[in-house]
Amino acid sequence: MTALSGENIAFIGLGLMGRPMALNLEKAGAVLTVNTRNPETLNAFEDIGIATAGTPADAAAEADIVIICVADTVALENVLLGEDGIIDGMEEDTIVIDMGTTSVEATRRFADAVEEAGGTWIDAPVSGGTQGAENGTLSIMVGASKEDFARVHRVFDVLGARVTHVGDVSSGQIAKAANQMIVGITIGAVAEAFSMADEAGVELEKLRSALTGGFADSAILQKHGERMIERNFEPGGKVVTQRKDLFQALEFSEGEMGVELPITRLAMELYDELIHMGDGDLDHSALIKVYEED
Amino acid sequence: MTALSGENIAFIGLGLMGRPMALNLEKAGAVLTVNTRNPETLNAFEDIGIATAGTPADAAAEADIVIICVADTVALENVLLGEDGIIDGMEEDTIVIDMGTTSVEATRRFADAVEEAGGTWIDAPVSGGTQGAENGTLSIMVGASKEDFARVHRVFDVLGARVTHVGDVSSGQIAKAANQMIVGITIGAVAEAFSMADEAGVELEKLRSALTGGFADSAILQKHGERMIERNFEPGGKVVTQRKDLFQALEFSEGEMGVELPITRLAMELYDELIHMGDGDLDHSALIKVYEED
Repeated sequence: MTALSGENIAFIGLGLMGRPMALNLEKAGAVLTVNTRNPETLNAFEDIGIATAGTPADAAAEADIVIICVADTVALENVLLGEDGIIDGMEEDTIVIDMGTTSVEATRRFADAVEEAGGTWIDAPVSGGTQGAENGTLSIMVGASKEDFARVHRVFDVLGARVTHVGDVSSGQIAKAANQMIVGITIGAVAEAFSMADEAGVELEKLRSALTGGFADSAILQKHGERMIERNFEPGGKVVTQRKDLFQALEFSEGEMGVELPITRLAMELYDELIHMGDGDLDHSALIKVYEED
Repeated sequence: MTALSGENIAFIGLGLMGRPMALNLEKAGAVLTVNTRNPETLNAFEDIGIATAGTPADAAAEADIVIICVADTVALENVLLGEDGIIDGMEEDTIVIDMGTTSVEATRRFADAVEEAGGTWIDAPVSGGTQGAENGTLSIMVGASKEDFARVHRVFDVLGARVTHVGDVSSGQIAKAANQMIVGITIGAVAEAFSMADEAGVELEKLRSALTGGFADSAILQKHGERMIERNFEPGGKVVTQRKDLFQALEFSEGEMGVELPITRLAMELYDELIHMGDGDLDHSALIKVYEED
């Protein structure tokens, strides 16, 4: 039994996240056509017998569902609206799913463009990192109408362990923005508490153990707290990405809705400081380094 | 089998936390003498056959271990160093355990006073609330020498489910300060993310569900997030207490050690705003109300 037997899916963007997601769809029986900027990656997919397309338009041409998993809004705009982009190739009734983290404003603009071309937009950003992508255990936050969500639910079930239909189009990206705000600020909370306790001579491993199971406990205390203790700042989630996500949340909330987010703003400034220190490509748990400066 | 058979313990402070803790010690076989400011509470203990003392000095006179669980540093100073205080009554070699949340500076001062009187100080603040106190499932963060910790470990095992020997005297209070910083800031993170999403029309219960299990998940998202959604601000932990704990952390870290805590400071200012709105006695999850003001 394969969950997606005969389903025509185009997959655009085969980076660290997209590659294992595409392979999971193939394993589940989807008839896959892939496209990505890097020719070597494309060849590697061809070598294992997966159909490739030279442009996003060609990949989208035969697909009922087009999934996009690219790095940022600029790349997304390119594969969607650029030359030989998805809009150029897709038929009517195609469902276009953006699984990257995209601003709410851009999401609405792209959703309109796809609808004008006769298609449907779904925003479905994920959390859970490359490990979640490989194991098919991503958390997926979906913005779509009830009907559209029902039409693609089985695809999300292959990719994720926790699929939440948050609300209409753009709700997925709003949930992802909330996710990134809480993650970015909680890293700051743990970094600040650890810096205080470390300077006072408390062993951080014992502190973390003392806080485990209480109200201060969190996924961040466990995972990112451990990284801070071990000084292991291999990314995971990069500082520059965290900074970008906080900026997008601020732009949307303060700029578009007039809801002030003072802690989010301060957290963004602290990540900025880290970027000015030359540490933008480290894991966001490296925020603790800001507290070690004079 | 009773864990504390024949152990002479004085218990000072029979408030919401102290009362169930004292009863758990009695159940475990301790020979208890209790003291508290409220005469009615004292009578109630006498009525169930527990020895009472009119002053902290009298309570401490026969005890090997004196446990203090009072509301704040002023009350602690009174029962310890005031007229007919513990220091006046205790014998040499008495172990005095402070289970309240006390500033690091005051802890060191009180520890010195008890040591001068021939006794030993242990700081053992707790987290887990009245429910944890009743069920004997508190998290206890202990600052003590290895030897002293070993001497009283069995008492903590009766009161708590998670007992961590963090380090030497005052380390327990440093861990508690770190706990309160993380709790206070994480509440801010969740309040800010919820306010943004709510204004954007996302259903908060669905948002919380979407974030559950990912990096944004925490005890605060689950417990205090639920309170925000249900608008149930019955304390739990009061705003004024949270504010006091953040102030103590700042005073210690910035004042005594020169480690700046910008997010903690901003969080304290937001709790101050809530106090100025007249909401100081609500649960700290009421911080979300600050974001609803103009």
